[in-house]
Amino acid sequence: MRKGRQTFVYERPPRVRAHASIVGPKESAGPLAAYFDEASQDDLFGQKTWEQGESEMLRRCVARAMRAGSLEAETAQALFCGDLNDQIIATGFAARRLGLPLVGLYGACSTFVEGLVVASALVSAGFLENALCAASSHFCTAERQFRFPLEMGTQRPPSAQWTATAAGCALLTAENGPGICVTAGTLGRIVDYSVKDANHMGAAMAPAVRATILAHMEDTGATAEDFDMIATGDLGWIGRDILLELFRESGRPLPADKLIDCGASLYFQEQDTHAGGSGCGCVAAVSCSWLMKRMERGELRRVLLVGSGAMLSPTSTMQAETIPGIAYAARLEVR
Amino acid sequence: MRKGRQTFVYERPPRVRAHASIVGPKESAGPLAAYFDEASQDDLFGQKTWEQGESEMLRRCVARAMRAGSLEAETAQALFCGDLNDQIIATGFAARRLGLPLVGLYGACSTFVEGLVVASALVSAGFLENALCAASSHFCTAERQFRFPLEMGTQRPPSAQWTATAAGCALLTAENGPGICVTAGTLGRIVDYSVKDANHMGAAMAPAVRATILAHMEDTGATAEDFDMIATGDLGWIGRDILLELFRESGRPLPADKLIDCGASLYFQEQDTHAGGSGCGCVAAVSCSWLMKRMERGELRRVLLVGSGAMLSPTSTMQAETIPGIAYAARLEVR
Repeated sequence: MRKGRQTFVYERPPRVRAHASIVGPKESAGPLAAYFDEASQDDLFGQKTWEQGESEMLRRCVARAMRAGSLEAETAQALFCGDLNDQIIATGFAARRLGLPLVGLYGACSTFVEGLVVASALVSAGFLENALCAASSHFCTAERQFRFPLEMGTQRPPSAQWTATAAGCALLTAENGPGICVTAGTLGRIVDYSVKDANHMGAAMAPAVRATILAHMEDTGATAEDFDMIATGDLGWIGRDILLELFRESGRPLPADKLIDCGASLYFQEQDTHAGGSGCGCVAAVSCSWLMKRMERGELRRVLLVGSGAMLSPTSTMQAETIPGIAYAARLEVR
Repeated sequence: MRKGRQTFVYERPPRVRAHASIVGPKESAGPLAAYFDEASQDDLFGQKTWEQGESEMLRRCVARAMRAGSLEAETAQALFCGDLNDQIIATGFAARRLGLPLVGLYGACSTFVEGLVVASALVSAGFLENALCAASSHFCTAERQFRFPLEMGTQRPPSAQWTATAAGCALLTAENGPGICVTAGTLGRIVDYSVKDANHMGAAMAPAVRATILAHMEDTGATAEDFDMIATGDLGWIGRDILLELFRESGRPLPADKLIDCGASLYFQEQDTHAGGSGCGCVAAVSCSWLMKRMERGELRRVLLVGSGAMLSPTSTMQAETIPGIAYAARLEVR
């Protein structure tokens, strides 16, 4: 990477050998339901608590990607993973049962793409023959941790996003062969537009998404024309509009028909999620199902996947801090 | 990395061009005081809250390492960083002011070494020309988040460790030249010996430390004889004894005179920390001061630095979960 740049171009692009996705009941009723590998009607996933349920969903998702890619635990080299729980406990407990070497990450909702960017570099460089990239989120664990106990039935403002109960996992390998490859990855910088409203995440993250897309394009010489789709996750409906406006204002508009947001795609508007979906699991599950399946079918050949995160906590909100946004981008290409 | 292995051997070992450490008042009164670059008597670091103070300490520490290594913000390529706060807010807010591309990590107290292992691979592979690896912790933010509000004056059991108010940062570069190099790095797997007591972290982490040391030795063919020092962080006095016992029991004892624990070295026993220091900042600050300065003086040539983390949260403790431990190892050599 040259000085001042943020983008890795992978000389030996890792291949997505397999992928898996699992979602909860509400996501199973959305427009992408048919694409998920497992749509559970039990949001506890057979466990006693939501946190344990989220961890079980994540474990199952990683195990499913391993099965789909015929990868045994003994030969799996690393799991790049994170979630929204304090101290990423869904990840820690899932990794305990999986028994895999773990690289624990935290990039809020950008975690899945953060993992893709870093893991792809290690696979491309020959340090790893394979890497599992995964992330999860759960509506019930997130609500009670970030906002209010569910039992309170607190009203959500219209700008709030709905944390998806979902997990996604992609298995990257160094082998050659046809399929989806990760050909470049862009790191993110914190961008903070002084949004203080933790129920307005799309607004807080859109400027970081714009910065990372621009960095990717500047570093690689690409333009929006080079992509069949720019998939963000998760700005929701409001954040997606703000992103389009930010690009329009700068005189370099982004073609709206190419811009898909995972959070704005996961639910029907009638499902009453307000501004759409969010959570690490949203972009992970939508990428590892709908997006990659469409790429495998030949409907999309070149996609810029941009994961964005709001790096706040309830403590920082109570201390009147603004919300730092970050975004990572991975270029996916069918080869 | 061959199948079934956990260790990266860096073909072009990154060099530690500069390092920096900052500690709080209690650490300034300990046996390593003279080694730290900044010993603050103000545990708020000029801010209004401890969380903001921790973030400021971390920011200052990274900025100090950049100054010491003559690295401008424009040419700094990535900051690998994490802390113990929920959603790693000390890191997020520090990265906001620093303006650097960020890879947010969470490995509890192992975070600094986790970052070293991953960043060294990216530098060795030529993806990065430089990388900053940092971590912080703060007694007051950790106590109120993981245990009790400080104002309660809750009594700590004798097995409890004292979360260090400290930050450390190492600047890795791809350039050749004499100095400390990171020559190999070992990823960790979760190891859980069913310890449930969140005030007995040393016991919870020691088995993971043993597993990672054994994996490193098996992968590289090294033995304890090959190192001048094995530095763990942070098992504390009790965890260090347990580690020695685990190795003795397995018939492959570790020479006790070579084993130093950062947490057991940071305070005098009379400072009433009970089992010693802990926290991401402890191993980061001790490595980036005492350890590296001793290596630069030629007192130590080959060190295995092992960072260990307890991947629990107050929620997992309340849900009666046991504590998953993890450890990462980095081999540091003077060349």
